[in-house]
Amino acid sequence: MRAVDIIVRKRDKEELSPEEIRFMVENFTNGTVPDYQMAAFAMAVLLNGMSHEEITSLTLAMAASGDQLDLSEFGGRVVDKHSTGGVGDKTTFIVAPIAAACGLPVGKMSGRGLGFSGGTIDKLESIPGIKTDLSTEKFIQQLHEHKIVLTGQSADLAPADGLLYALRDVTGTVQSIPLIASSIMSKKIASGADSIVLDVKVGRGAFMKTLDDARELAEVMVAIGELSGRKVIAMLSQMDQPLGHAVGNALELKEAIAMLQGKGPEDLHTHCIDLSAYMLLLGTRHKILTKPKKWHKRQLTMAAPGRSSEK
Amino acid sequence: MRAVDIIVRKRDKEELSPEEIRFMVENFTNGTVPDYQMAAFAMAVLLNGMSHEEITSLTLAMAASGDQLDLSEFGGRVVDKHSTGGVGDKTTFIVAPIAAACGLPVGKMSGRGLGFSGGTIDKLESIPGIKTDLSTEKFIQQLHEHKIVLTGQSADLAPADGLLYALRDVTGTVQSIPLIASSIMSKKIASGADSIVLDVKVGRGAFMKTLDDARELAEVMVAIGELSGRKVIAMLSQMDQPLGHAVGNALELKEAIAMLQGKGPEDLHTHCIDLSAYMLLLGTRHKILTKPKKWHKRQLTMAAPGRSSEK
Repeated sequence: MRAVDIIVRKRDKEELSPEEIRFMVENFTNGTVPDYQMAAFAMAVLLNGMSHEEITSLTLAMAASGDQLDLSEFGGRVVDKHSTGGVGDKTTFIVAPIAAACGLPVGKMSGRGLGFSGGTIDKLESIPGIKTDLSTEKFIQQLHEHKIVLTGQSADLAPADGLLYALRDVTGTVQSIPLIASSIMSKKIASGADSIVLDVKVGRGAFMKTLDDARELAEVMVAIGELSGRKVIAMLSQMDQPLGHAVGNALELKEAIAMLQGKGPEDLHTHCIDLSAYMLLLGTRHKILTKPKKWHKRQLTMAAPGRSSEK
Repeated sequence: MRAVDIIVRKRDKEELSPEEIRFMVENFTNGTVPDYQMAAFAMAVLLNGMSHEEITSLTLAMAASGDQLDLSEFGGRVVDKHSTGGVGDKTTFIVAPIAAACGLPVGKMSGRGLGFSGGTIDKLESIPGIKTDLSTEKFIQQLHEHKIVLTGQSADLAPADGLLYALRDVTGTVQSIPLIASSIMSKKIASGADSIVLDVKVGRGAFMKTLDDARELAEVMVAIGELSGRKVIAMLSQMDQPLGHAVGNALELKEAIAMLQGKGPEDLHTHCIDLSAYMLLLGTRHKILTKPKKWHKRQLTMAAPGRSSEK
């Protein structure tokens, strides 16, 4: 197998096999496939697209490029939640405790800010002295003891994704739904959750500016979940204005605490209730969730927290 | 100006300015634009194409990346001839002396074999002790003395093209008409000829397998000539069987000498007469040639040496 032949097949709009995609990812990660071949490949993917099967292969290959958490001891109930990023989005601090309080194990690794979008770990670090780099052992221990854990992503979680993201950033290949979806999902899958609730933001303050793009991204990530045996549900939510009132790391954390005390703004309240409800559904209703077709009708309803709060 | 923005514009099918294209080529040649950015750019060019103006900018930027011969002292009459490569193509050894014997200065730098296609310089080196690496001074001196010179391409002729070709070879970006056309024409323009007769081969033994691809390549190269102030004419010729009888470096040279003695095969004879006629027309008929529109009708007639020799 040669990288150049795989690039040519993608350039010519052919469907790549899981082996070919794994070859590219593994050898890019270990340095055998050089940056320039991966850059040409990424541009061919951006311009020619990928099938759901190819995107799933890419996701799983990137997830397998580093450590993968095994949370099977929790009986397939561990729930994660991921937002594609917006302004004032502090929902993790609210929905993780709600789901945990209802008895679900919530194991979550969060990221740093990217572009204009704040990072959950950056916000958490507003608390002086807080530890955001738990080891895998500590992560599992805490999940047993408290049924909730929130930490920064291990450096060895999907390292292929980190390398590819850095390359995409300088080669004009960021704006590709297959590459965005596999980047998000590879980290979620490597961090071991069985169920994932995706909050796909759409609007002026989101990476996806149009409803069509957001819907496509959501559908691709749900398809990756289905093809890789994870329960995934995606919500589309408006991001034309900040979520809640507070924007800024410490301020957002403060608003999240107020929310948990029942004193938060209504748009944030509605949105968090929606998110937690989906987390609880995914983490508890196993029998219904084994019929994914039924879920397709629900998962893409547009949740509009801004408007619903005006009722 | 940033390379990533230029890549994004080409990715999004926008028309690049000459300055943007020059920025990419100059900085790729001096190492400021890394291989991975140029690889993503090449893939975007391959998949999204380029206008004739963009291809001409790319050609001129590559031609300007190294030495450029100034042959203006010959009064704009120096003629070059280029074949896109086929099997048994030894026409340079025949048509260059014919045109020179008719009084035209023929200044030609030739290349090495590429893939299955033999190289004129490799063939010439069948003559023991022959010198194929003339300096620029020697090239011009010989052109004055003998009105004919044939040598290998200087290493410093369009170095950007050499670098880009090596990168295209390993990134699946060889088969792009804008990149093929600018590669050929950048070397022709840097080597100083005022008029260029292009022999675009089409068929099983050529790089262009279909008449459509060959015609597109020919049209693009003629457009580059027009936009860059060179007189360029392109012939399409069949390459479904070897040209003449001999294939192999020394054998081809022997057949070329026999042809000049009037003892060559008829298909080669017909083809060489056609080529020399176009060289003489381009090099002598200045007044007609300043009206390029008239030429468009003629330059793409399909010359079929195989068939015409059967008459």
